[in-house]
Amino acid sequence: MQFTYEPVDAAEAAAQRAVYEPFTQAVRELLDATIRTRAGAEDIAAAQAAIEAITATLRADQMDGPFGVRFTSEGEGMSWGNPVIGVRNPMAPPLTVEHGDDRCWAEFELGAAYEGPPDHVHGGISALILDHLLGEVASGRGDRPVFTGTISLRYLRGTPLGRLRCEAWTERIDGVKTYARGFISDAEGPTVEAEGVFIQPAWARQ
Amino acid sequence: MQFTYEPVDAAEAAAQRAVYEPFTQAVRELLDATIRTRAGAEDIAAAQAAIEAITATLRADQMDGPFGVRFTSEGEGMSWGNPVIGVRNPMAPPLTVEHGDDRCWAEFELGAAYEGPPDHVHGGISALILDHLLGEVASGRGDRPVFTGTISLRYLRGTPLGRLRCEAWTERIDGVKTYARGFISDAEGPTVEAEGVFIQPAWARQ
Repeated sequence: MQFTYEPVDAAEAAAQRAVYEPFTQAVRELLDATIRTRAGAEDIAAAQAAIEAITATLRADQMDGPFGVRFTSEGEGMSWGNPVIGVRNPMAPPLTVEHGDDRCWAEFELGAAYEGPPDHVHGGISALILDHLLGEVASGRGDRPVFTGTISLRYLRGTPLGRLRCEAWTERIDGVKTYARGFISDAEGPTVEAEGVFIQPAWARQ
Repeated sequence: MQFTYEPVDAAEAAAQRAVYEPFTQAVRELLDATIRTRAGAEDIAAAQAAIEAITATLRADQMDGPFGVRFTSEGEGMSWGNPVIGVRNPMAPPLTVEHGDDRCWAEFELGAAYEGPPDHVHGGISALILDHLLGEVASGRGDRPVFTGTISLRYLRGTPLGRLRCEAWTERIDGVKTYARGFISDAEGPTVEAEGVFIQPAWARQ
């Protein structure tokens, strides 16, 4: 597994982000509109042709594979392709994760693209977000790479689309295993609870 | 929770799908290119302006909320906005789920948009897909609406990006609870296993 150290410093990373982040946000809006539009066949055909032309321009110079997990020369993480927090991934809400001592949290909004049951978040989307936040807290802000060993989710009630919060914390660390817990909540309280065991891979052990 | 019965028959649904499905596929390609492009600031600014114009056209006539879960007049499901199987959701791979007696499966490809660790599927994306397939098999092809009660995932090794298979089956049904299991596999065998309990909601009980 190849983590990439980019020959860019924080200033260059910020300059790149200023270009790609608002662009990605525009594609994110398009994604929502793609699901919800009632435009007719002619408008859709015109939009499709225009989008194919844009994609061809973007693909004229692109990475061979996926974005990867990169770090600036100062060691700052650039998980820009990540489906939960990636500022260059239009399918990511994206979450901005805030960190306390042994705890992290994010407030975010989920719309049409994340719907399972009518007007409610797909249960698997809740699992995606919880897996990410439990993994992030277990990794100690990324200082200690970990992979999900097991994760269990308990759905207390439906999670409505709209404004939500996710919170995760470390319960205990036992050798290479970190035990983490968390939940997603709406204004009325928790809707889904999770607990997981995250494992430090052999190559990251000292 | 409001399921929508559309005043469209199978022929009209097929006609709508013929318009929106290839368009959504074009947006899905754009999503991948958005993550991987190395285009410079000028090209990106031009692409962003063009996309914002397209989104405005699409939004001129759009649904007030999310797509919802619709059925044709013949009772055929139209989960077109779903983030796993939705043919109108650019973030869905989308999976085409095939059904046997007490079993369902899908073969699909995951690229840059689904990456967690470098070149590997985000653990939460595996959870999303497994939750969907276990729920689908537990619902008996959608005849018996169910919601996830609990789901547990065990990660055997990293799941590489690329061609994958997901399979799920019903273990047993005990009143309103259906016990389902499943896995994701690559060419070398299973990478993630799941088991879940799916609950028939009170309003769907007879």
